Amino acid sequence: MDIEALQQKLAEFSAERDWERFHNPKNLAMALAAEAGELIEVFQWLSEADSLALNSAQRRAAELEIADVLIYLVRLADRLGVDLDAAVAVKMQINAERYPVELAKGNATRADRRD
Amino acid sequence: MDIEALQQKLAEFSAERDWERFHNPKNLAMALAAEAGELIEVFQWLSEADSLALNSAQRRAAELEIADVLIYLVRLADRLGVDLDAAVAVKMQINAERYPVELAKGNATRADRRD
Amino acid sequence: MDIEALQQKLAEFSAERDWERFHNPKNLAMALAAEAGELIEVFQWLSEADSLALNSAQRRAAELEIADVLIYLVRLADRLGVDLDAAVAVKMQINAERYPVELAKGNATRADRRD
Amino acid sequence: MDIEALQQKLAEFSAERDWERFHNPKNLAMALAAEAGELIEVFQWLSEADSLALNSAQRRAAELEIADVLIYLVRLADRLGVDLDAAVAVKMQINAERYPVELAKGNATRADRRD
Repeated sequence: MDIEALQQKLAEFSAERDWERFHNPKNLAMALAAEAGELIEVFQWLSEADSLALNSAQRRAAELEIADVLIYLVRLADRLGVDLDAAVAVKMQINAERYPVELAKGNATRADRRD
Repeated sequence: MDIEALQQKLAEFSAERDWERFHNPKNLAMALAAEAGELIEVFQWLSEADSLALNSAQRRAAELEIADVLIYLVRLADRLGVDLDAAVAVKMQINAERYPVELAKGNATRADRRD
Repeated sequence: MDIEALQQKLAEFSAERDWERFHNPKNLAMALAAEAGELIEVFQWLSEADSLALNSAQRRAAELEIADVLIYLVRLADRLGVDLDAAVAVKMQINAERYPVELAKGNATRADRRD
Repeated sequence: MDIEALQQKLAEFSAERDWERFHNPKNLAMALAAEAGELIEVFQWLSEADSLALNSAQRRAAELEIADVLIYLVRLADRLGVDLDAAVAVKMQINAERYPVELAKGNATRADRRD
């Protein structure tokens, strides 16, 4: 995925509509969270198993909401000057330290929520 | 960004921890939305202007939450078999039709929410 | 529940801390959504059955996040001048019309997401 | 607000539609978060000042989304057996200790996000 090209396209889309003034990080984070809400709406009454076997309408909806989240995420990163590759690398290192294999094996529960 | 390589890494991270059974689309969508909630928490009391001028602690938090959202989004797309590039292309086409420049200029409000 | 008394307490809590300027509807809606994200974080890796049998740490977390959502919801309603009882009555009437028993029986899927 | 009467009504609404099996805490938390997403969607492009001066369409939308969040919150509390009054009292006590007036005055930023 060419993130920079996508960011360029999204910036043009906004500039053409004079939307730059709306697209500050606060508002973009809100828009991203609203789309995340629409994404979970697709899955909220489905069983975990059924969420792996969507019908065509559910699948179409999931694809479009995933795209919406990604669009706002990429736009937000652009406005903040965040390097997505670097941020993901840092976070994955943190996760590896926070969830060592021997402790996390078969248990996704946060340490402070366990019995 | 090499999405497939990232998906491969995330799949290995999960497999090593025996987390595959937790990582169905329903649960991943929830995890994504939870991270989106943590992302907006960074911005909720900031003015729109201040959201463009984060201090270092806020910026660090924003970067890590953006990474979390992206990680779960990429993982979710993998589990659903969604092609992110294609989904974004479809959604941008829909947006271009839904928000024609002449109508959307300077106004981000949905048509049904305008005066 | 005495909503007005709670709104009065929350207004005093904010006034004492000079937080009124942060507590506009936009920011309060963000704070509510951030707390909703923390609430789903409690449940994201649990099975549906296990979500009915929380351990004490999970239960404590759920109670506090539910309280947080309610606090921001009541505060938001106050700032907007929304009558919660009236709003709920209107919405329940809409739901009764949208989901007639004969069509909705055993099926919570939105009409446009069915096979 | 008569929470118990509302919970009774919501339980009847679900039972008539054979929706009890969908209404476990995991799914209800998701539904609540989805509605919180729709609520922030009302405010995402509005300035903080404009969020206090909604037009009639925005206000109607905000009222209905607030009602939706409250409905799912009350239903979730019922399914978990959470006493909302008690939970709010506990949380407000925690907040009073976490944000003492002298430290929080005019500053809503979390201690770990300050300069």
